[in-house]
Order: sequence, then structure tokens, then C-alpha cells
Amino acid sequence: MSTIYWLVFAPIVVAVLYSLYIIGWLKRQPAGNEKMVAISKAIEEGSSAYLNRQSKAVGIVAGILFLVIGILLNWTTAVGFILGAFLSGLAGYIGMNISARSNSRSAEAANKGIGAAFSLAFKAGSVTGLLVVALALLAVAGFFAYTQDVKSLIGLAFGSSLISVFARLGGGIFTKAADVGADLVGKVEAGIPEDDPRNPAVIADLTGDMVGDNAGMAADLFETYVVTLTATMLVGLMTFTGNQIWFPLVLGGLGIIASIVGGLFVRLSNSKAIMGALYKGMGASLFISVVLFYFASLMFFPEKTWPVFLSTCIGLFVTIAMVVITDYYTAKKFRPVKRIAEASRSGHGTNVIMGLAIGMEATFLPIIIIALGILLSHWLLGLLGIAIAATAMLSIAGIIIAIDSFGPITDNAGGIAEMSGADKSVRVITDALDAVGNTTKAVTKGYAIGSAGLAALVLFAGYVEELAGLGREISFSLGDPLVVAGLFIGGTIPYLFGSLAMQAVGQVAGVVVEEVRRQFREIKGIMEFKAKPDYSRAVDIVTKAALQKMIVPSLLPIVAVLLVGFLLGPIALGGALMGV
Amino acid sequence: MSTIYWLVFAPIVVAVLYSLYIIGWLKRQPAGNEKMVAISKAIEEGSSAYLNRQSKAVGIVAGILFLVIGILLNWTTAVGFILGAFLSGLAGYIGMNISARSNSRSAEAANKGIGAAFSLAFKAGSVTGLLVVALALLAVAGFFAYTQDVKSLIGLAFGSSLISVFARLGGGIFTKAADVGADLVGKVEAGIPEDDPRNPAVIADLTGDMVGDNAGMAADLFETYVVTLTATMLVGLMTFTGNQIWFPLVLGGLGIIASIVGGLFVRLSNSKAIMGALYKGMGASLFISVVLFYFASLMFFPEKTWPVFLSTCIGLFVTIAMVVITDYYTAKKFRPVKRIAEASRSGHGTNVIMGLAIGMEATFLPIIIIALGILLSHWLLGLLGIAIAATAMLSIAGIIIAIDSFGPITDNAGGIAEMSGADKSVRVITDALDAVGNTTKAVTKGYAIGSAGLAALVLFAGYVEELAGLGREISFSLGDPLVVAGLFIGGTIPYLFGSLAMQAVGQVAGVVVEEVRRQFREIKGIMEFKAKPDYSRAVDIVTKAALQKMIVPSLLPIVAVLLVGFLLGPIALGGALMGV
Repeated sequence: MSTIYWLVFAPIVVAVLYSLYIIGWLKRQPAGNEKMVAISKAIEEGSSAYLNRQSKAVGIVAGILFLVIGILLNWTTAVGFILGAFLSGLAGYIGMNISARSNSRSAEAANKGIGAAFSLAFKAGSVTGLLVVALALLAVAGFFAYTQDVKSLIGLAFGSSLISVFARLGGGIFTKAADVGADLVGKVEAGIPEDDPRNPAVIADLTGDMVGDNAGMAADLFETYVVTLTATMLVGLMTFTGNQIWFPLVLGGLGIIASIVGGLFVRLSNSKAIMGALYKGMGASLFISVVLFYFASLMFFPEKTWPVFLSTCIGLFVTIAMVVITDYYTAKKFRPVKRIAEASRSGHGTNVIMGLAIGMEATFLPIIIIALGILLSHWLLGLLGIAIAATAMLSIAGIIIAIDSFGPITDNAGGIAEMSGADKSVRVITDALDAVGNTTKAVTKGYAIGSAGLAALVLFAGYVEELAGLGREISFSLGDPLVVAGLFIGGTIPYLFGSLAMQAVGQVAGVVVEEVRRQFREIKGIMEFKAKPDYSRAVDIVTKAALQKMIVPSLLPIVAVLLVGFLLGPIALGGALMGV
Repeated sequence: MSTIYWLVFAPIVVAVLYSLYIIGWLKRQPAGNEKMVAISKAIEEGSSAYLNRQSKAVGIVAGILFLVIGILLNWTTAVGFILGAFLSGLAGYIGMNISARSNSRSAEAANKGIGAAFSLAFKAGSVTGLLVVALALLAVAGFFAYTQDVKSLIGLAFGSSLISVFARLGGGIFTKAADVGADLVGKVEAGIPEDDPRNPAVIADLTGDMVGDNAGMAADLFETYVVTLTATMLVGLMTFTGNQIWFPLVLGGLGIIASIVGGLFVRLSNSKAIMGALYKGMGASLFISVVLFYFASLMFFPEKTWPVFLSTCIGLFVTIAMVVITDYYTAKKFRPVKRIAEASRSGHGTNVIMGLAIGMEATFLPIIIIALGILLSHWLLGLLGIAIAATAMLSIAGIIIAIDSFGPITDNAGGIAEMSGADKSVRVITDALDAVGNTTKAVTKGYAIGSAGLAALVLFAGYVEELAGLGREISFSLGDPLVVAGLFIGGTIPYLFGSLAMQAVGQVAGVVVEEVRRQFREIKGIMEFKAKPDYSRAVDIVTKAALQKMIVPSLLPIVAVLLVGFLLGPIALGGALMGV
């Protein structure tokens, strides 16, 4: 057992220590001139202020749910719930804080060349990546070691889900609304460049990168990680013997090691090879994972080492496929982006049509890959094979998040360079990094969705199992009208959710547009650089609006499940869960 | 039996005679001045030319499939296939032809007021509506009377499906590409009004309304009608006794009577009440249907009259709900459209965001209605209840299509008024009619999808039945990885299909933009009304491009089904069918 503890908890400690080391190193890097520091400080304050207010709002909800769970179910689950919520928030908060302090440093490093700027941003991003996986694994493994009860982990998973939906939504509305609002008036109406200091919404835009693309994303991955590990352990309960229940957690620990070592391979020589440098790091992580996972499979499952090991390989393969497909659909050099650029020649309309069309096309290959992953891993080892594949996929989340997190930092760095009037060469560097950052940002989304898709059947099995435990053996046949109605209703929920989120973004962006127009009109001299716009007012407006608008959509998933369950019963709910 | 024949075939004869009467009446109406007639003639020629070329292309495919079906299956099915394809094409062709001859007449009638213009356009649209249901019912009932074999109807359904996918896609690409292309250069770049005679793509745009919104829509509804009737009769085979197999066909016949009589109630007094006038006609049709369906239920099912009758009522209720919901989401006076208009104040970006968001939201209520329809009708009478509800829903397609078809005619009338320099008052009238036409156009789409959604379970049961007939009793459980993989793959097919169609529209629109820009550049004096643009060249370009671009997406549904079936087997295919 002590070996197992070592394999799980030592990587957590290493990840935390390594993060602290990076944080120390980052602090010693030059933060740039006075102007740059001031801008960075404004972003940091804006994002912290947002996250504090969000935490307060979510804290109240979490507090109420804590009591409800404690009273209606049991206090162990309630404590797990609060722990999941707290650690998820903590990972996002620290990661974002480090990122917000590293943006001007990355801009400053760009004076030395793209390698230095990239290296700094990637290291800063690694903090978010490592803290997410370390704290998520700590939550699951620590709580399980304490309770020795897999079912108690469900509370933990629910707690992290709560933070996830709020952070993704609130942060998402913030970043998109600020971005769209700033661009619509700044770039389109006033004809000034992106991130121009004359744009009153520019700080809000940069702050949005932090709260949405960094903190929101971190909470999302934290949740996916915790839920998948929990689901795998639940499935494992049926067949595992002895210490095998720790196998998923060990995969997590080994994945952390692979992520840390792989990260050391990320090094950039020239601006053409940014994606290549990231691929190198990811490749190294994957290679190390494959080797470590083989030995873990051998150790835990001496009698069926190969099916288990191959299942982990399928998870890693799905990860690779997701990254490659996303790169293809979002990088500048391939057909999809080129075709959108081409379509833009004939105007806004054809640009939007082609952009939407390519976006829809981009869902096809990932779905095929996920479907193949489900079929192959199930063929190897049944439901457990799928669960192991999903766990293996998420175990290397550390490097994936690190690869994602450098994006918002370089995006910020570009903004700071532009605003502080830095040399054009700095902006060229940050723009190149930002473009790749937009790809890796998309990668993480596909990765999170992909692992959730892979885990869909596992989660569904958990639901069926739970019903059976309540004495209700139910079969879910496609020929059953309740299942079909459930599938239909479930299928429409993401549309409604997406619609509510987009309406929120549209409305908040509209408010930003009005505010920016007002400042241009009322504060004389902005356009001539003679007067400074009121940045903080824009940040404040977005903060309030985003928090207000996130309430309804974030309640939707819970309300929908409760409504379908209570009105139409467990069969329709099963259909709805799969339909979602 | 002879009573039944009367109930089915007499309405078909009446519908055809009434259509001929309307056509005769229309011919006697003044077609407007020379300019108007010339424009109308250009539209008629353009749309006929397109449909002829489309028919030629589809004819070749249909001929090959005829031989394949005849040799591999049997010649009865092959003849059914060709008959379905031919009658579907015929309904669309005649309907479109009448519409294209009525556009200038509607514009001319607008001089006498909105009532006259509306009445003429609605009557012309009724021809399409009545011919679609009459010929579709004739195809199914006639072929069944001849073969006395329900299974042979599958060929008929497949034939109409073939025309449907080509006509909807080809026509859809044509109309959207011409519309977008004309507007992007005309309205956005050159700043000239919609349908301005200086715009070289204006005739192509008006032609698109005919081939897409009229002929394409007609083929789509023809197919839905035939497929639903066939599926209901297949389900009926399991439980029907005696003449009951004719019940769905009798519903169709009675629905035609209800549609004709209801249409007589459509009368307009003032411009505020256009939708109200249409509601009146639809309400009358529904009321008559309810009464007739009760007696039909009594006649065919004396022992379970009420469950059968209530199932038909559910179908009619779903229709009403679809119309009301669509009206809410597309009419100018309600929140959704107002919110999009409001969002447009802050620019293109927020307009697009809000438009997409509202569009996504608009899917929610219809799905809930369909799910409820499935559950209630199944509760009443099992699978047969659902089938009867879907049939009842489609039986009044005549009035629904009529309500839709006046839209493209008034749209055309507006264009003709604008181009011929008619009085502003004419344009005001046609614009008001056009706006409502856009709502009713959306209604028909929701209606067709809704009935297909309602029939999904029925079609799926047909699939299961067919497999059982082959000696393969298969259960489709949501816990089966093949089912889940099938659901995933099926769910992504419409995205890929939509993407391919949109890419086609985007690309063809881009070509239109280039051509319009070229004409503006090379033909001197267009802007000053001194030179006439080359309309026919634009029509020709769109025709060729639309036909070329429709090939790949129209093959997708067939190829996808074959691939999933052969590679992953019947279980995954079942999942995929439901997922689609």
C-alpha cells in the first residue's frame, strides 16, 4: 500500500513544489517599465475583483447546498462537496493570479526574442496546469484515503461541477462580451487597432482573458478530472479486487510526472515552430505516460496487463487525435482557416456563413474518434476499458492545460505591448504566440468534451447502477417512447444553454458598446491621446453584468435534470442524460 | 370498400379540379404592365431552366437507382420508386410554374389594395399546396390499391426522398446564395435598396425564391407526407384488421377537404391582420379536420374510437403549437425579433450573436411539444397512436403549404414592383406580406421537422421490424456501446450535412459577389440606370454552381447510412438513425 501512496501523493507534492519554484523564478523576472507594470496591475486587480465577487456569489450557493446535502444525505458527502468546490476555486485563483502577474513579464521578455517570451509564458501557464491536476488528484485521493468510500466522492464531483459551471459561464460571458464589445466599437467603428490604449474597454478585454480563458478553463478541467476519476472508480467497484481501486489514482499521479517532465521539453528556437515546440512537450509527456502506464498496468493487473494497458493507450490516442484535429481546424496554414479567410473577401456575410460551416464540420472527426475510442476500449475490457481510457486521457491534463494557459498570457502580453507603446517587434512576437494560443485554447475545449464523451457511457452505467441499487432494474431501449422523448429533450438542453449564454454575451457586449461610445463622446481628447479613458468603469460594468447574466443558464442543467426526473421518471431521465 | 375509395380518391379529384379552376382564374387576372411582365418572364424562364437542369441530373441518378432496385430487389418496388420521384417532381414543377406566373399579377393586384394582392397570392400558393397533397396521396393510395402490398410503398417513399434531398439542397443553395450574394454587394457595398434593378443578381435572387422556397419546399413536404403515410401503414400491418389499413389514407383524403374548405376562409381586410387571416383559414381547416377525423375514427375503429380520435387530435395540436411557436419566434411584434433588432444597434457582431442565440432557443419549445406528443399518443394507443398522430398532422399539409407558398410569390411581387418602378404604396403592401411570408416559410420547416420527429419512433419501429423479419431480434439499449457510438455518429451527421450545405452557399454566394462586382466595374452606367446589367449571366452562374455543389451533401445521408451499417453493423445503425 505504501508504494501506492507514494505513486499517488509524491507527484502531487512534486507538482506543488515545482509550481512554487516556478512562481519564485517568475517573480525574479523583470516586469517591464512603469507603464507596463501599471497595466498589468490593472488587469490583476480587475480579474481578482471579478473572481472575488464571483466567489462570494457562488459561496452563498455552495453554503446552502452544503447544508442541504448534509441534512438530506450525510455530512461526509457534504464535506466532500465543499472540499471539491474549494479546491477547484483555489486552483483557478492561484493559476490566474500567477498568469496575471506574468503578462507584462512575458511582454518584457519579448524584447529578448520569441524564445524568451514563450518560455516565460509557458512556465507561468504550467503553474495553472500543475495546480489543477495536483489539487484535483489530492481532492479525490485524499478524500478517498480518508473515507475509504468511493460513493462519498460523488459529493466532491458535484462540488467541482458547481464551480465549473459558474466559472466557465461567468468567466466566459465576461471575456467574450468584453472582447466583442471592445472590438465592435474600437476596430469596426473607430478604426483603431486591437488593444489600443484609447479603447475604454481594452483593460476589460485583457482581464477577460484571465477570468475566462484561464480561471474558467481551469475550473472546467478540474471538474472533468474529478468526475472522470470518480466515475472510473465507481465502475471499478464492480470488478476490482484488492488495491486495484487505486489504479485510476495512480494513473493520475504518473500523468503528473509525465506532464512535468514533458514540459521541460518545450523549447522554442524560431517563430515558425511554436506549435512544434508544444508538440514536442506533449509528445514527451505521452511517451513517458505510455511507458509508466505499462508498468502500472503490470503492477495492478498482472493477469490482464495488455487489455488494461491498451485501454490507457486508447485514451492517449484520443488525446493526440483531438489535438491534431483541432490544430488542423484552427491553425492558419490549413484549409479550414484559409477557406474562412478566402470567404471574407466577399464580405461579412460570407465570412460568418463559412465560419459557422467550418465550425460545424469541425465536430465531425472528433465524434468519430470518440465513437471509435468507445468501441475499441469496450471491446478490450468492457465498461472498465472505456473508464480506463477516459482516465488515461485526463491523467495528462497537466501538460494540456499548460499548453493552453500560455495563450491568455501572451494575449495579455500583446495587449500590454500595444498599450505601453512598445516596439513593433514585441507585438509581432506576441501576436505569433497569441495565434497558436488560440489553437491550444480550442484544443483544451475539445479535450474536455472528448473525455466527457468517452466517459458518457461510464457515467450512464453509474446511473443505471444507482437505480438498480434502489431496486429499480430498468432497461433503456431506443424503442421506448420515454427514452426517445428523453433523448429529444436532452438533445435540446445544450441548445437552450448555449442560447442563454450567447444572449448573455450579446447583451453584455451591447452594454460595453454603449459605454465605449459614451466615453468616446463625453471624454474629449481620447482619440488624440490627450485624455485617458475610464478603464475601470468598463471593467466594473462587465463584472456586474456577467455575474448577473450567468445565474439563469447556470441553473438550467440542474433544473432540467430535476424536472425531467420528477415529471417523466427515471427512464426519460436516462434518455435525457444520454441526449445531453 | 367503395365508400373508402370515395373518401380517398374523390378529394384527390376535387383538389386537382379546384387547382385547375384557380389556374384558369389566375390566367384571367391582369399581369401588369410590359416591364412587370418582362421581369416575371425572366424569373419564370430562370426557374424553369434551373428545374429542367436539376431534373436532368436527378433523372440520371433516378434511372440508375431504378435499375439497381429492379435487378436487386423487384420491379414493383422499382416502379414505385420512379413513380414517387416523378410525382414529387411534378407537384413541385407545376406549383412553381403557377407561382412564377402569379408574381407580377400579385404586384398588379397590390394597386387595388393589400386584400387583393394577398388573395391572389394565397390562391396561387394553394395550387402548390393542393397538388402536393393530392399527388402524394394519389401516389400512395393508387400504388397500394394496385399492389395491395404495403411493403411496396417503401420504394415510393425512397423515390420521393431522392427528389426531396436534391430539390431542397439544390434549390436551397440557389436561393440562399443568390440572396446573400445580391445583398452583400447591392445593399452593403453599393448601398442600393433590395431588389434594385441595378443589381445584376436581382433576377437570380427572385428566381431563387421560386426554386428554393416553392419547388424545394414542395418536394420536401411531398416526401414527408409519403414517408409518414407509408410508415403508419407499416405499423398498422401489425394490428389492423379488415379495411383499417385504409384509415391513414382516408385521413389524408379528409385532410384535403379540410384544406380546401379552410382555404376559403382566408380573407384579409387590413394590413395588420395578415397572420390573423391565415390563422382563420388554418383554424377552419383544423376544426373541419377534427369533426371529420372523429367520424373516420368511429367508422374504422368502432371499438376504440376515442383513443384513435384523440391520437389524431394530438397530431393537430402539435401542428397548432408549431405554428404558434414559429410565429412567436419570427414575427416582428414579439420579444425574439425585437431583441435581435435591439442587438443590431450595437453592430453586426451583436446582431449575429443574438440571431444565432434566438435561433438556438427557438428549437426548445418545439422539441418539448414533440416529446409530449410522442408520450401522449403512445400512452393512448402505443406505437400506432404515434403513427396516427403523425399522419393526422400531415393530412392538413395542403393548407399549411398554401400558407407558406404565398410568401415567395409576394416576395417576388415586391421585387417586381421595385424593379418596374411601381408606386411606393405597392411596395409597402408586398413588404408587409413578405414579412408574414417569412414567418410562414419557417412554419413549414418546423412542421415538416416536427412530423418527422413525431414519426421517428415509428420509422425506428419499422427498422426493428425489418431486422426481425430477417431473423435478427435486436435490442437497442442505451447501455450498449454500439448504440452510443451510433447515437454520437448519427448526431454529428446533420452537422456535417449542414456544414457542407452552408459551405456550398458561402462559396456560391462568393461567386455571385465577384460577378456582381465585375458587372458594376465593367458595364459602365449601371449605377446611373443608363446600362442594363446582365441578369441572365448571374442566374446562369448560380444555376451551375448550385447544381454542382449539391452533389456531395446530397450523397451524405445515403453514404453515411451504408458506411455505419456495413462497418459497425445493425445495432450501431439503429443508434445512428435515432441520433440523426
